Amino acid sequence: MKLLRLGALGAEKPALLADDGTLRDLCGIVSDIAGEMLGDEALNRIRSIDPASLPLVSADRVGACVGNVGKFICVGLNYADHAKETGKEPPPEPILFMKATTAVVGPNDDVEIPRTSAKTDWEVELGVVIGKRAKYVSEADALSHVAGYCVVNDVSERAFQSERGGQWTKGKSHDTFGPIGPWLVTRDEVADPQNLSLWLDVDGQRRQTGNTSTMIFGVAHLVSYISQFMTLMPGDVIATGTPPGVGMGIKPTPVFLQTGQVMTLGIEGLGEQRQTTIAARD
Amino acid sequence: MKLLRLGALGAEKPALLADDGTLRDLCGIVSDIAGEMLGDEALNRIRSIDPASLPLVSADRVGACVGNVGKFICVGLNYADHAKETGKEPPPEPILFMKATTAVVGPNDDVEIPRTSAKTDWEVELGVVIGKRAKYVSEADALSHVAGYCVVNDVSERAFQSERGGQWTKGKSHDTFGPIGPWLVTRDEVADPQNLSLWLDVDGQRRQTGNTSTMIFGVAHLVSYISQFMTLMPGDVIATGTPPGVGMGIKPTPVFLQTGQVMTLGIEGLGEQRQTTIAARD
Repeated sequence: MKLLRLGALGAEKPALLADDGTLRDLCGIVSDIAGEMLGDEALNRIRSIDPASLPLVSADRVGACVGNVGKFICVGLNYADHAKETGKEPPPEPILFMKATTAVVGPNDDVEIPRTSAKTDWEVELGVVIGKRAKYVSEADALSHVAGYCVVNDVSERAFQSERGGQWTKGKSHDTFGPIGPWLVTRDEVADPQNLSLWLDVDGQRRQTGNTSTMIFGVAHLVSYISQFMTLMPGDVIATGTPPGVGMGIKPTPVFLQTGQVMTLGIEGLGEQRQTTIAARD
Repeated sequence: MKLLRLGALGAEKPALLADDGTLRDLCGIVSDIAGEMLGDEALNRIRSIDPASLPLVSADRVGACVGNVGKFICVGLNYADHAKETGKEPPPEPILFMKATTAVVGPNDDVEIPRTSAKTDWEVELGVVIGKRAKYVSEADALSHVAGYCVVNDVSERAFQSERGGQWTKGKSHDTFGPIGPWLVTRDEVADPQNLSLWLDVDGQRRQTGNTSTMIFGVAHLVSYISQFMTLMPGDVIATGTPPGVGMGIKPTPVFLQTGQVMTLGIEGLGEQRQTTIAARD
């Protein structure tokens, strides 16, 4: 299933993208696409319903495909070809950092360039949405804790991230730095999360091209690994790292975002995002 | 005012510690000590009530003094004397990292020693609870965005933090690594947040002694600074760094926690915590 959330920021309503391309209202079935509603039981309840029996809805705005994200956990340098591009050795175990949950926005919302920013950059990433509590889970069991997958743009300010005295979270957390969606695609519809192509354009120019097959640590490993350090809860989102082609990696001169630019990005089977960059709001 | 939350984990009810030492039920006044209930308007509503008119309540368990913590932001190396103890230069600007919000527990709950941990450590810290949204706020305005203060134990696994491939969040985020409380003391009752003594004992032996006067970056600076990188929301908690005396700083041999030990800690005017260490639960 393709689940999404429609409506104004903070007032999104749950919906389903049916196979016939229509948008169907899930308000009568679940209160939101969030928390316990991401568990297998709730997802099966939705699955058991004939979409044609649900009211049609329209989409003025598509929100983040998960509500109430509890933790937004990101993985650094997780593509072999991206690690090579940055001139760094592949890490021996996953690098983890957090993005502020206040950074979450819809897939097509404007992205703010922070005040004083000179190095705002893009990162298309496979997002993993947790559906069931995970603490000390094995790699073999890990995927059963996943509700589904989505597109994430892990927008990053490189100077804040690396030149401002420590810990990447500082460059990852500005409002709008976490577009999520358009859809949460449930895991049963993603045959192999380690074989998805992904891409990102800036102003129509292809910047990132990759495939999740070159991840250093795959999704099952990541979920198991993270669950050794913190408990994953339904509604937590993991951004699994970015393939080559980020702005800071462009030779000979890195390229960063200015206001008025357009990022488009997508992942095979998971839909597309489109953001325009704007000056930071108060 | 001293506000607290009483009851089983996940089902805490709001309460007030009155000046006469009685605990008073706030359920009829506010739904929780969380989110918008931390704003000046809601706090003034509580303040306007005669505590003697509120029902008495008892405390089987004291929960975290803030519910639904949205972001748990921590500051590293923020005491001049602690920086010296670790052999590091004082940072030129605040070091920020995130603790998983799933780490939040009550002030007297058991603290888990993670599986495979050999270096679980203590850190008494002044906690700052945000009451009003803060984005790009000035240092002069910063304290008006603070609801109040509390005790935090920023429990840390040093090997996970520093020897496991990057970013401190890995060692800061285990379940129970964030005891908060017992009380949220509203800011009007804290005459000077930069002049509070704080201490921590392990099994009755004094380990940490300090005063917020030796903070490198004070509370107003921190709130303003953080608000340049992410938007602070009501219910966010900032742990402002720890004074000297952590286990990893003990010479000649660092000392770390084992199961069955007791941490007691407190801050002048903000109450005390007491945790027993136990093996990690599933």
